[in-house]
Amino acid sequence: MYPKPIRDLIDSFKTLPNIGEKTAERLVMNLVNRDKSELEKFSKNILNVSEGIRECNICHYITDKELCYICSDDKRDETVICVVETVRDVVVLEKLKMFKGRYHVLNGSISPMNGIGIEDINISSLITRIKNQKQVKELIIATNPTFDGEATASYISKLLANTGIVVSRIAHGLPVGSDLEYADELTLFKAIEGRKSL
Amino acid sequence: MYPKPIRDLIDSFKTLPNIGEKTAERLVMNLVNRDKSELEKFSKNILNVSEGIRECNICHYITDKELCYICSDDKRDETVICVVETVRDVVVLEKLKMFKGRYHVLNGSISPMNGIGIEDINISSLITRIKNQKQVKELIIATNPTFDGEATASYISKLLANTGIVVSRIAHGLPVGSDLEYADELTLFKAIEGRKSL
Repeated sequence: MYPKPIRDLIDSFKTLPNIGEKTAERLVMNLVNRDKSELEKFSKNILNVSEGIRECNICHYITDKELCYICSDDKRDETVICVVETVRDVVVLEKLKMFKGRYHVLNGSISPMNGIGIEDINISSLITRIKNQKQVKELIIATNPTFDGEATASYISKLLANTGIVVSRIAHGLPVGSDLEYADELTLFKAIEGRKSL
Repeated sequence: MYPKPIRDLIDSFKTLPNIGEKTAERLVMNLVNRDKSELEKFSKNILNVSEGIRECNICHYITDKELCYICSDDKRDETVICVVETVRDVVVLEKLKMFKGRYHVLNGSISPMNGIGIEDINISSLITRIKNQKQVKELIIATNPTFDGEATASYISKLLANTGIVVSRIAHGLPVGSDLEYADELTLFKAIEGRKSL
């Protein structure tokens, strides 16, 4: 149905997450009409996307230096570490401009169902980091509110019991602006369990 | 927040339709973890996407030859032409495997609001085509059910009045599987207007 160069690019786009045949077709049809110079730029940006990119030595966030921009920023509070599953989670939290501490990217969560064990994610480096940096006072565990995320949070919290470090978990409940009627049961359960006195 | 190569690629993805910051970030983070060989392939496919791509001399569908695969197929019925706004519309209809005639891609619709006039879309080539190919008996106008699409359909239909060619318009009404309660007024209006006796 399509000439080969177009078919090939549709197939490339379909390797991306949540991009199906229809979306890929729409994106490619948009690119077909572009100037050669624009295609060259896009093409070059894809080729170079991982050029010099590595994990931060301390927190595992992406960087093109030895330390990421957060770990190398003296103004960030070293006493609080926010533990997240992915690099994307750091970006989401950073956009809030609310948290002024440091991060630790686990790169996943413990998931026996998917064969992901404790040694497959960045837990040991978190423990080493806490031991070496004596100043850490609080660990905010912001893993996802899923079965795996909860299991990971609970495992890390047990590891740090009796160390004097405050381990907290981000709150779960009804999203702001949502409707109680349409909330799922577990969210509603967590919302009631985590109620605050007014 | 991102190293430069990643920021650059996010910006490239954001030039695509319906790709915002968040989606672009998600796509790029997926690419960062790919092998260099995969990135090279993707990059090359983007660079070459418009290589040798042109409009079919007859119907304006995309092709890498003089005539597209539909116009060069003797088995397709030359007596019926389906007029559509875009190349994508041809693909959607072809996937149905229901229509066995030919197409004519207008490359847009008449839109005074956007400064798109009669001469900006492929109407004159449609008329020439009908005049030269005496065998055309029916024109199915499948432009979008929008103000511009309707205006275009009505303009083409007037141009062909008294030529003996049957000009038809695809039906508008409630989508199959949808709910009458949630249909917009115009769709409901068209559905009642276009009722068929059982």
